Amino acid sequence: MRATLMYGAGDVRVDTVPDPSLVEATDALVSVRHASVCGSDLWPYRTMEPTETGRRMGHEFIGVVEAVGPRVRTVKVGDVVLAPFVWSDGTCVFCREGLQTSCLHGGRWGINGIDGGQGEAVRVPQADGTLVVLPVAVDSVLMPSLLTLSDVMATGHHAALAARVGPGETAAIVGDGAVGLCGVIAARRLGAEKIILLGRHPDRIEMAKEFGATDIVPERGADAVQHVRELTGGFGAHSVLECVGHDQSMRTAIDITRPGGAVGRVGLPQSETIPAALPTLFNNIAIGGGVAPARAYVDELLPDVLEGRIQPGRVFDRVVRLEEVPDGYRAMNDRQAIKVLIEL
Amino acid sequence: MRATLMYGAGDVRVDTVPDPSLVEATDALVSVRHASVCGSDLWPYRTMEPTETGRRMGHEFIGVVEAVGPRVRTVKVGDVVLAPFVWSDGTCVFCREGLQTSCLHGGRWGINGIDGGQGEAVRVPQADGTLVVLPVAVDSVLMPSLLTLSDVMATGHHAALAARVGPGETAAIVGDGAVGLCGVIAARRLGAEKIILLGRHPDRIEMAKEFGATDIVPERGADAVQHVRELTGGFGAHSVLECVGHDQSMRTAIDITRPGGAVGRVGLPQSETIPAALPTLFNNIAIGGGVAPARAYVDELLPDVLEGRIQPGRVFDRVVRLEEVPDGYRAMNDRQAIKVLIEL
Repeated sequence: MRATLMYGAGDVRVDTVPDPSLVEATDALVSVRHASVCGSDLWPYRTMEPTETGRRMGHEFIGVVEAVGPRVRTVKVGDVVLAPFVWSDGTCVFCREGLQTSCLHGGRWGINGIDGGQGEAVRVPQADGTLVVLPVAVDSVLMPSLLTLSDVMATGHHAALAARVGPGETAAIVGDGAVGLCGVIAARRLGAEKIILLGRHPDRIEMAKEFGATDIVPERGADAVQHVRELTGGFGAHSVLECVGHDQSMRTAIDITRPGGAVGRVGLPQSETIPAALPTLFNNIAIGGGVAPARAYVDELLPDVLEGRIQPGRVFDRVVRLEEVPDGYRAMNDRQAIKVLIEL
Repeated sequence: MRATLMYGAGDVRVDTVPDPSLVEATDALVSVRHASVCGSDLWPYRTMEPTETGRRMGHEFIGVVEAVGPRVRTVKVGDVVLAPFVWSDGTCVFCREGLQTSCLHGGRWGINGIDGGQGEAVRVPQADGTLVVLPVAVDSVLMPSLLTLSDVMATGHHAALAARVGPGETAAIVGDGAVGLCGVIAARRLGAEKIILLGRHPDRIEMAKEFGATDIVPERGADAVQHVRELTGGFGAHSVLECVGHDQSMRTAIDITRPGGAVGRVGLPQSETIPAALPTLFNNIAIGGGVAPARAYVDELLPDVLEGRIQPGRVFDRVVRLEEVPDGYRAMNDRQAIKVLIEL
């Protein structure tokens, strides 16, 4: 089959790889129909050392079940299924607590012999714990929004929960990428009244406003902090969603948080440390979040997508075929696309 | 009157200073009867640059009201009162939310012309918001425990809340100082089942066990992490109270936290940053806490002290008179005393 591999920074190729097949009794074989490129795929795209063997890519996909192992009970051949961005058994102590990203018997796509999502098919380990059967046809117009539940919308929701967004509160979102835009949706969905987006790209700002952003802060650093304070009676926002991961964006997130407020961080940190130990202590600012347990949030978010209350799939502003995936990476890296949808 | 001043590292003196008097209509004048030395007083004791004028010390005290300004309504002459470790108006937006440490019109003792608590008397600003009338005589045997509500017991409680201690959970406390010991009390009070103290001083460990610690981890660094994991089924503790403030102790606190758990930090950070940005992200470990709003916790903790259910005053293992306060600092700094009570 054909699948996406990364061989080094800027070097993404679609190659022929062995066809997957069932190995464990708990596996399912899924033919991928919709996949996407994640902002986190851009970190290796910018920094990966060259390799001979390449690395399988992709961790967001929807497909059709082609075969299941003898111990699989909750999905069957022909089901349209969503895979969250890690696979998990659904039964361990962490899965039962809704923290499938820490599953004792789970793992990540694309490593240790597991297929990536940006390919024609995937052997899905722990199919019962991992896959969610979708009650729609595989060519539904809802597919882009459903696909976001595998990662980006779940991540925005996770940031909003960690930032303790609540009805009537003020939320600020640092970053106007796909995660930040989904953070706007999540903040509004949880009832935030004032929603401040820190971003500067006109097309993304326009989308953020349509998603519910009430105020835009295009500045960065100290000027951004000043602007947010002006918008919040001088105190900062109750809830701040950090959706970038840079030291500077984390520092800004902390500096615009109201005393007693919380930062929900989901951006992959580019530094070994979290800044501002003293200000967060004196102002009692909590820092939470992390990699989003997307599997845990499907039940809550799915009805809103199915009934059209949220449309996170709008963050996909470019569609490519599998052979065009390298162009998709380039477009996202050059900020010519917010997020790239792959149709197979 | 006589009061404690610090003139530089290791240089604490009891000097004659001007007698305080009412200035604002919202002031009260309090004659101090019980005060104490705080672990945080030891930071300037170790690092302060020499000065000519000195700095007034002390932020934990109980006394008797000697006079009140015309706008004071909730305390009257003769009342026995407790002062939390910051003064606050009790009416601003942050006070109403229970975050008196961020009071818009409040401040700290011992600076900007405000008296410190380690002296014969204190002019108390915003007396209505700041002071709590105690329903006991000033010579009650409960005084040491009541005094801890001004800071150290409130701080242990704050750490436990931020670490999300709950019934049946496992809590670990990093540090066997007075705050850590109060953290043990707080964790038990909130229902933790397994309470692990990381400490190595025999007298403090003994007290921690009496307060409710079920397990002691005397190691540090990687060995401590290993030991806590062995005690917690390999996963770490749900709730970790960081009661030291060093980089190493914060790192240990994070490393012994279970995925999805929380660190409540109340130790004054000795570093500009918080370590372990990546592990906390991948394990969804929240970091909360800060300076404790002691004023907010009095209502909740006071009945437990009055009815003898908790005895945090046992952390005072040395009593000095005002003129002996320099010896008290020395004893705490040399770890010959856990915490020093000052009787006036």
